[in-house]
Amino acid sequence: MRQKLLSLVSAVLPTVVATRRDLHMYPELGHMEFRTASRVARRLRDLGYAVKVGRDVMDPDALLGLPSAEELEAAYRRAEGEGADPEFLPLMRGGLTGVVGEWRTGRPGPTLAMRFDMDCIPVAESTDPDHAPFTGGFASRHPGEMHACGHDGHTAIGLGVAEIITRIADDLCGTIRLLFQPAEEGCRGANPMAEAGVVDDVDFLLAAHLGCGVPSGHLYTRIDGLLASSKLDVTFTGIPAHAGAAPHMGHNAVLAMAQAVQGLYAISRHGEGTSRINVGVVRGGTGRNVIPADAYMQLEVRGATDQILKYMEDRARKVLEGAAIAQEVELSISVQGRGLSSQNSPELAALIAEEAAYVPGLTVHNAGHVTGGSDDFTVLAARAAQRGAQTLYMVQGTDHKAGHHTPRFDINEADLQHSLAVFALAAARICGRPSPV
Amino acid sequence: MRQKLLSLVSAVLPTVVATRRDLHMYPELGHMEFRTASRVARRLRDLGYAVKVGRDVMDPDALLGLPSAEELEAAYRRAEGEGADPEFLPLMRGGLTGVVGEWRTGRPGPTLAMRFDMDCIPVAESTDPDHAPFTGGFASRHPGEMHACGHDGHTAIGLGVAEIITRIADDLCGTIRLLFQPAEEGCRGANPMAEAGVVDDVDFLLAAHLGCGVPSGHLYTRIDGLLASSKLDVTFTGIPAHAGAAPHMGHNAVLAMAQAVQGLYAISRHGEGTSRINVGVVRGGTGRNVIPADAYMQLEVRGATDQILKYMEDRARKVLEGAAIAQEVELSISVQGRGLSSQNSPELAALIAEEAAYVPGLTVHNAGHVTGGSDDFTVLAARAAQRGAQTLYMVQGTDHKAGHHTPRFDINEADLQHSLAVFALAAARICGRPSPV
Amino acid sequence: MRQKLLSLVSAVLPTVVATRRDLHMYPELGHMEFRTASRVARRLRDLGYAVKVGRDVMDPDALLGLPSAEELEAAYRRAEGEGADPEFLPLMRGGLTGVVGEWRTGRPGPTLAMRFDMDCIPVAESTDPDHAPFTGGFASRHPGEMHACGHDGHTAIGLGVAEIITRIADDLCGTIRLLFQPAEEGCRGANPMAEAGVVDDVDFLLAAHLGCGVPSGHLYTRIDGLLASSKLDVTFTGIPAHAGAAPHMGHNAVLAMAQAVQGLYAISRHGEGTSRINVGVVRGGTGRNVIPADAYMQLEVRGATDQILKYMEDRARKVLEGAAIAQEVELSISVQGRGLSSQNSPELAALIAEEAAYVPGLTVHNAGHVTGGSDDFTVLAARAAQRGAQTLYMVQGTDHKAGHHTPRFDINEADLQHSLAVFALAAARICGRPSPV
Amino acid sequence: MRQKLLSLVSAVLPTVVATRRDLHMYPELGHMEFRTASRVARRLRDLGYAVKVGRDVMDPDALLGLPSAEELEAAYRRAEGEGADPEFLPLMRGGLTGVVGEWRTGRPGPTLAMRFDMDCIPVAESTDPDHAPFTGGFASRHPGEMHACGHDGHTAIGLGVAEIITRIADDLCGTIRLLFQPAEEGCRGANPMAEAGVVDDVDFLLAAHLGCGVPSGHLYTRIDGLLASSKLDVTFTGIPAHAGAAPHMGHNAVLAMAQAVQGLYAISRHGEGTSRINVGVVRGGTGRNVIPADAYMQLEVRGATDQILKYMEDRARKVLEGAAIAQEVELSISVQGRGLSSQNSPELAALIAEEAAYVPGLTVHNAGHVTGGSDDFTVLAARAAQRGAQTLYMVQGTDHKAGHHTPRFDINEADLQHSLAVFALAAARICGRPSPV
Repeated sequence: MRQKLLSLVSAVLPTVVATRRDLHMYPELGHMEFRTASRVARRLRDLGYAVKVGRDVMDPDALLGLPSAEELEAAYRRAEGEGADPEFLPLMRGGLTGVVGEWRTGRPGPTLAMRFDMDCIPVAESTDPDHAPFTGGFASRHPGEMHACGHDGHTAIGLGVAEIITRIADDLCGTIRLLFQPAEEGCRGANPMAEAGVVDDVDFLLAAHLGCGVPSGHLYTRIDGLLASSKLDVTFTGIPAHAGAAPHMGHNAVLAMAQAVQGLYAISRHGEGTSRINVGVVRGGTGRNVIPADAYMQLEVRGATDQILKYMEDRARKVLEGAAIAQEVELSISVQGRGLSSQNSPELAALIAEEAAYVPGLTVHNAGHVTGGSDDFTVLAARAAQRGAQTLYMVQGTDHKAGHHTPRFDINEADLQHSLAVFALAAARICGRPSPV
Repeated sequence: MRQKLLSLVSAVLPTVVATRRDLHMYPELGHMEFRTASRVARRLRDLGYAVKVGRDVMDPDALLGLPSAEELEAAYRRAEGEGADPEFLPLMRGGLTGVVGEWRTGRPGPTLAMRFDMDCIPVAESTDPDHAPFTGGFASRHPGEMHACGHDGHTAIGLGVAEIITRIADDLCGTIRLLFQPAEEGCRGANPMAEAGVVDDVDFLLAAHLGCGVPSGHLYTRIDGLLASSKLDVTFTGIPAHAGAAPHMGHNAVLAMAQAVQGLYAISRHGEGTSRINVGVVRGGTGRNVIPADAYMQLEVRGATDQILKYMEDRARKVLEGAAIAQEVELSISVQGRGLSSQNSPELAALIAEEAAYVPGLTVHNAGHVTGGSDDFTVLAARAAQRGAQTLYMVQGTDHKAGHHTPRFDINEADLQHSLAVFALAAARICGRPSPV
Repeated sequence: MRQKLLSLVSAVLPTVVATRRDLHMYPELGHMEFRTASRVARRLRDLGYAVKVGRDVMDPDALLGLPSAEELEAAYRRAEGEGADPEFLPLMRGGLTGVVGEWRTGRPGPTLAMRFDMDCIPVAESTDPDHAPFTGGFASRHPGEMHACGHDGHTAIGLGVAEIITRIADDLCGTIRLLFQPAEEGCRGANPMAEAGVVDDVDFLLAAHLGCGVPSGHLYTRIDGLLASSKLDVTFTGIPAHAGAAPHMGHNAVLAMAQAVQGLYAISRHGEGTSRINVGVVRGGTGRNVIPADAYMQLEVRGATDQILKYMEDRARKVLEGAAIAQEVELSISVQGRGLSSQNSPELAALIAEEAAYVPGLTVHNAGHVTGGSDDFTVLAARAAQRGAQTLYMVQGTDHKAGHHTPRFDINEADLQHSLAVFALAAARICGRPSPV
Repeated sequence: MRQKLLSLVSAVLPTVVATRRDLHMYPELGHMEFRTASRVARRLRDLGYAVKVGRDVMDPDALLGLPSAEELEAAYRRAEGEGADPEFLPLMRGGLTGVVGEWRTGRPGPTLAMRFDMDCIPVAESTDPDHAPFTGGFASRHPGEMHACGHDGHTAIGLGVAEIITRIADDLCGTIRLLFQPAEEGCRGANPMAEAGVVDDVDFLLAAHLGCGVPSGHLYTRIDGLLASSKLDVTFTGIPAHAGAAPHMGHNAVLAMAQAVQGLYAISRHGEGTSRINVGVVRGGTGRNVIPADAYMQLEVRGATDQILKYMEDRARKVLEGAAIAQEVELSISVQGRGLSSQNSPELAALIAEEAAYVPGLTVHNAGHVTGGSDDFTVLAARAAQRGAQTLYMVQGTDHKAGHHTPRFDINEADLQHSLAVFALAAARICGRPSPV
């Protein structure tokens, strides 16, 4: 069986590489993956999957950090002109770009879900002569947008795994559900999918990230140190006044913001583990001689545990409230994203490690790779784990020439087959029919 | 009549000088003028005045910035040993050191009130060889306390005027009320006297200050630019925690204070006139390695008008509230003193100027002398003015060798007679029987 | 002579109104008055004036708050297409849009300068049916730009005065110099003209502003309470870092800005007069999860006197320096504008009042009208006054339906003739040949 | 040999207990251990040790956080009256209360140093009926001072070990040096001893702490998580001014402090490990109506590594500097204490664990016990380790009824013999003559 799977991996690999390059050419930002998602849905249905998209897999009330209506519409129009699937596209209008494909064996057995993320980031791709996508002719055709975090690879792997599953269908039992998630950047897309219940009945939930500083040919079964995080947008709204003639008539939103910035960074460290806070973007005021009546901040808090995150967010809200009261301005806070800390199942990790050992050329570390980043896979994982599932987030190494989120980021395509194989072996192990294993 | 008055001034002057020197030797801080006030009451009664003290002239619920019970008691004991009047002293226990003496002519006529303040300040008197009280042997016998603002002179003048009035009683009509006020420093003593109603029925209210930078032999009929002020004591109470092991458990009162201090000074200037703010004293915390759970501030706000003062105090309270909320600490604010802006009657000023012109050696300016200070005479004046009275606060110049509130401050005693004469002439003019004038 | 002048005023008035409406249709922002200024220069030369523009009347090293090269070039191109004068336009390239026209009588006598400002402000003009420029068909043709401060009237008056002078040339002696200044908004354009020496040899310097809340038909000879001001742009430049993984590597420019904002507003009030401070615009940071490495502020300080302004600016610079040091970020400050306090000559005011009394329908107040604004005419006035000139800044009232700098601002054109007459009479009085007066 | 040692432990135990109780009755604060230290020196010399005290074992230039001259002198006088040793006492005047006793075997061999700390803390001892020192009659006789951290036990153990060593002298080689350190609280006393060179030539350095939450009968060979720390006293000195009349003349030290407090707490977390900051005590200003010209802060920074500590202290100094510059006040910083992070030798820990296993009733954990506190033993350890020594800081458990530094803290005296035995066995193992082991 494992040999058969490894052969299938080799067989689908060219398609996976081609898909990855196609996606790389047409990167789409979070909640605007209209072309990507509609084509993913098309492909899944063509393969025989039960496919749901849009409102069926994303709770509209749980959307976070949605782009503006204008941005959404412009992206939608662009996708129409770039080969989006006409059947699924309309269902995704307004940013509902999640896709779930389900393979039901009809035989009793566990439910395994695997998650792949699809969005790109707002970076202009490099035109360096040693940047493979550029010289290979598959660089981004969308100025200022780029797959600089490897999600093109993730999505291509997901579709490759989808195909392999159809080829071993007779040997499987239970249900295999493939989750294609939008808007992982900013920790936004998982929340509406979780709230729509897409992992509520799963027994196992898997995901992997390419890169993260791990070299080609190495697999870490666990990513550790993912900090739980909340991303908040804050506005203060005051009352303008002429700064020379009547400064006392103003309610100063920029001063509120300044007090808040200081107060936020001054939130006490937590004695039980890592905490973080950052006010990454600020804006305020309209003119030099007007007491500024508006101010805007993008901030994030993080914590080593969900409890520490809660402490940080609670304290941040108090600091913001205090600043608003002090300056007598209105305060509005909106949650733009939320990630939780990582919760990996040691049992599932051991099982994956066992299977991954059969992948030629892959060195397996059943250990945690530490990162300081965030991924809202944790939101799906927490929801599934609460209901008894085993969850795991792996790292598939790949030599990347430049850091994630930089213009020269690129994956080593040779690692696509490693990741493909790990997912396929995992699926066969977990949902394999009792006899053959 | 004016000649007679000027003769009487000369006659009582030696007593006035002696009284001033006696008071200079026994200075008493605000609300602790037990010796001073009880002896003033004694003297007034001996002269035939209807005398009220304590609770009858001060509303206990309206007291501001009272010293501690220990301080009050110690001062009381000291006064007992230094010649306080045994009849009046007990009525003043607890800081009720106001005195009102009333001369009722029995003839219909206006009610004129004149106010004199009695308290000293916490300054150690100079022992320089050119400091007259020291070389003259009447320097303060109370270490760290000194009449460095001229109130010894004010009280002595008040008693001199009291005596003169008895000598011209037959020529008077209406009522003359002499108000001896405690605790002018810190703008405290006027409030409980005003609330007790001591000026509610007056038609004219007068006061004068010695010095203020005006040279000997000059009278300004009005003091202008007195800023209204509020004096607030503030405490923040948080929760302590070990700064190394569990800093997140702390609710940091010193951090609240720091935010408040910055926010207070940053309260916007007022477009319509002068405003002021100061946090003059701060304290907080118990140990280097404990998140500080207590903090204390003494602050004051001022304004050119009562409205600007209100703006400053309202804004300050919001800033304090915001700081408390941001750090999740308790906030307590207590008013320690309050003064209003000056409201001088031009008509009364003109009348005084007319009379003062008869005082030999006195140059009269029917004009405002500008100062940046505060005096809670304004609290009495505002109350009286609301009820229709004309009020006036004058400056009697005197060459003072060093600034008010400094160890070498001293008045030129030659100016006592000028001030004495102005009050006496004013009384005779306002309450003179119709015929003789 | 006065009658002749008043007749001339009536004669030129239709042209003045037409000019004002033409300028109103083609408003241009500061330093981009290419059409306005080149046509002013053309007209002056056609009238026989000695005309200088560009580098001859503006010191390029003393320019403040210049728009970007792109903005300047776009405005230049636009002016080319809207009837700019082809001879003068090239000399103004790069923002050198000042014009000086000089009438030299050839007879010995005083030098009188009169200043008119030409720039508009960035406001979108009203399309209300009761907004006269809109219904009259002469509303702004430049979206987002509008003569909402009356400078169209000022410039038209200046050209009207220019014409009248040519008609009474035989009766004049000395020199009359007309200064057409760019970029009054933001207090920018006067500085390079002053530094170029355009008022260094004048004996008298006059200007007037329309409106300022004074009703139609009233003239105040002096504007008082102009606050001296400095306008500063500030940037902090730090070092970015990943806010989750390596926050300690960042040098936080937004935190420096926050500390600066608080510190700036907290600069102590000045005991000797009005002071102001405002941070009107702030921006900083690039992404939520990046320690922000850049921050930008637009601020201004003001003072009732040049000394108070200096105090405020000195203190502000210290606060900024301290914030930069505390966060270990780079600080850069650039002066974007500077105005001084007003210095009006009482003698010149009296002379103007005398002449203005002859203007029919004009009520003259030889008194100060108080405003809280700023105007960099004060920079020219200070330079001239230092060299012995008498200077004066008047207010010509006009009923304006809405406030200065708002979309519905409009002047009452009937007041153009009043202002025209006052300038003409002043010129004739000051530079009239000795005999005829 | 081990049996002999355990017998000796039993033999000296009563004396150790008696010594501990005597010390408990006469607790002395840091640098004022005049009675304690002089009697320790006496005892060591009586036992035959080479004893050095005062200037010979403490570098006066390296003293940190010394009490005031008045406090030192008062404590000295008190010690004279409570049985201080008259020979050694004068050498300790001024706070030089360190003692070093050296046992030189005369035979070649390693140099082993063991450190014991002697100071108490400013806590008033409990008078609860279940507080053993109180009911046992050996509670503190010094109001407000108490051995509430177990140093009385440490010192008593040190003297017990000293005696045991003399009894096994023939079996030893090399040198055993006993360090009795003052002022461990506040991390002060180790620095001047280290700078005096007392550990420069040692091969092994040992210390232990009683308690720390470890129960009776348990030994942890390593204390982990000791945070490196610096304790700083900070003063800002400005210029006072009258807050009403001339606020602009003031240079506000309290405002500088407020900015510093906010800036200090806002120092960024360190990405590589735990950091801490606290401003535990603040004071400032002299009167409500005076711009405050003085401010004082006690602060501390901590870090998981010496590098993180350095980051925190460097950043803190910049924040303080920036605040001083912003307000134009003088800044003065004095280091009051310094501790480093822990550096334990695994080899030495293993060796101790091996020996401790022979102690009856003691459960040995060759593992780290984590604490969030600080101890300046780390300063001695860092100095010794730099020169090649192996160093180790152990925790001897003891059931303590209440937390360290609280009024009801008490050790279980039964654990004294455990600690005594561990030190004795360690000494015999390290400095045992080659043959007998």
